[in-house]
Amino acid sequence: MKRHLLESADLDRADATMVLDTAAQIDQALAGREVKKLPTLRGRTVVNLFYEDSTRTRISFELAAKRLSADVINFSAKGSSVSKGESLKDTALTLEAMGSDAIVVRHGASGAPHRLAHWVRGSVVNAGDGTHEHPTQALLDAYTIRQRLGRLEGVRVALVGDVLHSRVARSNVWLLRTLGAEVTVVAPPTLLPVGIGSWPVEVSYDLDAVLPKADVVMMLRVQAERMNASYFPSAREYSRRYGLDGRRMAALSDDAIVMHPGPMNRGMEIAAEVADSVRSTIVEQVGNGVSVRMAVLYLLLGGNEPA
Amino acid sequence: MKRHLLESADLDRADATMVLDTAAQIDQALAGREVKKLPTLRGRTVVNLFYEDSTRTRISFELAAKRLSADVINFSAKGSSVSKGESLKDTALTLEAMGSDAIVVRHGASGAPHRLAHWVRGSVVNAGDGTHEHPTQALLDAYTIRQRLGRLEGVRVALVGDVLHSRVARSNVWLLRTLGAEVTVVAPPTLLPVGIGSWPVEVSYDLDAVLPKADVVMMLRVQAERMNASYFPSAREYSRRYGLDGRRMAALSDDAIVMHPGPMNRGMEIAAEVADSVRSTIVEQVGNGVSVRMAVLYLLLGGNEPA
Amino acid sequence: MKRHLLESADLDRADATMVLDTAAQIDQALAGREVKKLPTLRGRTVVNLFYEDSTRTRISFELAAKRLSADVINFSAKGSSVSKGESLKDTALTLEAMGSDAIVVRHGASGAPHRLAHWVRGSVVNAGDGTHEHPTQALLDAYTIRQRLGRLEGVRVALVGDVLHSRVARSNVWLLRTLGAEVTVVAPPTLLPVGIGSWPVEVSYDLDAVLPKADVVMMLRVQAERMNASYFPSAREYSRRYGLDGRRMAALSDDAIVMHPGPMNRGMEIAAEVADSVRSTIVEQVGNGVSVRMAVLYLLLGGNEPA
Repeated sequence: MKRHLLESADLDRADATMVLDTAAQIDQALAGREVKKLPTLRGRTVVNLFYEDSTRTRISFELAAKRLSADVINFSAKGSSVSKGESLKDTALTLEAMGSDAIVVRHGASGAPHRLAHWVRGSVVNAGDGTHEHPTQALLDAYTIRQRLGRLEGVRVALVGDVLHSRVARSNVWLLRTLGAEVTVVAPPTLLPVGIGSWPVEVSYDLDAVLPKADVVMMLRVQAERMNASYFPSAREYSRRYGLDGRRMAALSDDAIVMHPGPMNRGMEIAAEVADSVRSTIVEQVGNGVSVRMAVLYLLLGGNEPA
Repeated sequence: MKRHLLESADLDRADATMVLDTAAQIDQALAGREVKKLPTLRGRTVVNLFYEDSTRTRISFELAAKRLSADVINFSAKGSSVSKGESLKDTALTLEAMGSDAIVVRHGASGAPHRLAHWVRGSVVNAGDGTHEHPTQALLDAYTIRQRLGRLEGVRVALVGDVLHSRVARSNVWLLRTLGAEVTVVAPPTLLPVGIGSWPVEVSYDLDAVLPKADVVMMLRVQAERMNASYFPSAREYSRRYGLDGRRMAALSDDAIVMHPGPMNRGMEIAAEVADSVRSTIVEQVGNGVSVRMAVLYLLLGGNEPA
Repeated sequence: MKRHLLESADLDRADATMVLDTAAQIDQALAGREVKKLPTLRGRTVVNLFYEDSTRTRISFELAAKRLSADVINFSAKGSSVSKGESLKDTALTLEAMGSDAIVVRHGASGAPHRLAHWVRGSVVNAGDGTHEHPTQALLDAYTIRQRLGRLEGVRVALVGDVLHSRVARSNVWLLRTLGAEVTVVAPPTLLPVGIGSWPVEVSYDLDAVLPKADVVMMLRVQAERMNASYFPSAREYSRRYGLDGRRMAALSDDAIVMHPGPMNRGMEIAAEVADSVRSTIVEQVGNGVSVRMAVLYLLLGGNEPA
């Protein structure tokens, strides 16, 4: 595995499978324990460098690092020297000089983690950059699918919603492809990227046509701030055409599952009855997020064997 | 003891006494130690979920959890997915899925911790909800009284100030009653709740009449934001009638103590000479807060015996 | 060594040398280790009490404390009871009552750490107070000079820039003097304090005249907010007269080094080619900051021998 995890494309099939297998081993190792902690990264420092607020992702990485016994520093760029005009490069060099072994970075600009990775000797993990990628989300989604369906090869995934602005969509498309799944993106034309023709996916504008053939329906979050931006006529119209409600869920095959990266807009892209149904993996995804991030930190920082 | 600590009424006399006794044992165990830490909750995760700022209470719980060797996650709802419209329920399920064993919640809405408790399998501790309750404050107050006066049964407590808006008052009234103390609330009529007639307390509007008979004077914080809300004529008028100054302190019996939950408005509800006098337990209350919260987390999370 | 570290003048030559030697021992001890942590302060609590934002300094102290195995509490005064009007004294007493062994304080008012030190029994470390002092910055600078040049006695230091508002300058002047270095301050007259005549320094207004004789050039950060305050005509003018660019760097003697406390304004007081040159110690300073702060906490809290 490479030193950094910047995008799904950093992972070939063997790497990606090793992350999922390591996460599974960690889950198994901790399941049998009173003290749900591994000593692997004791004395190592993981910095959460967040230029955008994301409490959920920050906490998931923080817990992952702490359960590996690392020290964690939370660095929110708001109100920091960044706001005094310090460059990303100087911030990176500062954190490395302080002894950080890994920097987990969330940034509003696509590509920021890649630039960071040029400047530091430690590992960089992309925790979401602009509209580009969010690779640990894709890994936890793949882990969840494998856990529920027993395989990834040949699994048919419908990815539904604002693909244009979604780093979750990008990361999932590439990783799922690497792992042998087949992806259909379903979205209004205004919410598809221009280059969609070159992605390894099918494209559909008709959710109802796709659902019966899907093993996995992955709903994307609607960003409220897009709502007024003329990407689609109205929230109600969006929900009517691309929301997953109980009626649509009934069209799914027996074993099909419903995923969402959270946080959800209940009643918008996903109905409460769907979110809370047995098909929903939403809560499992959150738990798997911690396991997968433990696996990533473990593999990148080259810890010892999990005890 | 129940799984949660949501309000003083959750604690019967045996439970409440067990919390106080456990806090005393913890104090004793740590007093003899170089390393002021117990291994009891190693590998457990405590989340401080704060929808309102309260650095003081947050730090107290954070220290309590860390001294029991738990991992602590601080989740301030500001700037989080909560502000993206995530529901309390989804936040709760997310935290639980990440492996939190206890959620310590501070919320502006009365009853929020009770709702949380319905959704999670772990423990919920109410760290203040609206104008409703703040049970660990009442426990640390009871612990402090018992420590100073040697008993709670029959102790006469004067609770002075803005009872209407005070969760500290509510929690204390119920817990003190459970533990056998007698409470007199002293406040202007505008700062008493409508249902005060059904509370197990005496009511007085005359602080000077109550002080000579009190073993404990518990001053409530005046919320500056109430000042302009026509609850009383002016700060000076309030202070003159319901503030505790040196002259009034002289009317207390020899062993009587003065309490305040903090932060104080020195010169407003309490004079500096009173706050800094030997009768004042204000600093002890803060220290006891950590011990009592350790006891609560210890009992709720069912740790092993304190070593 | 005294109980507190409030200003450089708290340190006589023996004390200051002991801090630097202890930092060197710590660096050496950790260099040979898999787990970069010492058990020295296990069970102790260090509070970062920051009334001003300074992510960089806060993280440096946080890492220093964690690498000594202390528990760390971050207390940002924003949104805390401080904003509800709690006095510095009550905040200090509260933190001490909660069991803090050391308070690391950053405050906008010169002298605030001294006042704090009167109220608490634990140790107080000044992490920057107003325009007064920032003693650990001076210690890390001295450590860096000694590391690079092998000595401090007789070293000629040029301190360049906004001396008037700089606590870094004040702390360095006194500590460098104590350790036998010779300091020349270089600044426009408007950015020198009125009492500069009583400082143990040479004064110059001509950077080009000073550079060839300097062993160390210590650039101070230009505060953008001073720029419009008529302290000097314009940014360009300042940079032209007092900025360190490649041409000026060429005038330095072969072994001379360039220092900056960070965060830098690249292109303003220091050119990128200087900041990134081999003469620059800027990244080392950051790393040394953690070591020196470990040494300070270790010596103040009287830990056991580093293992």
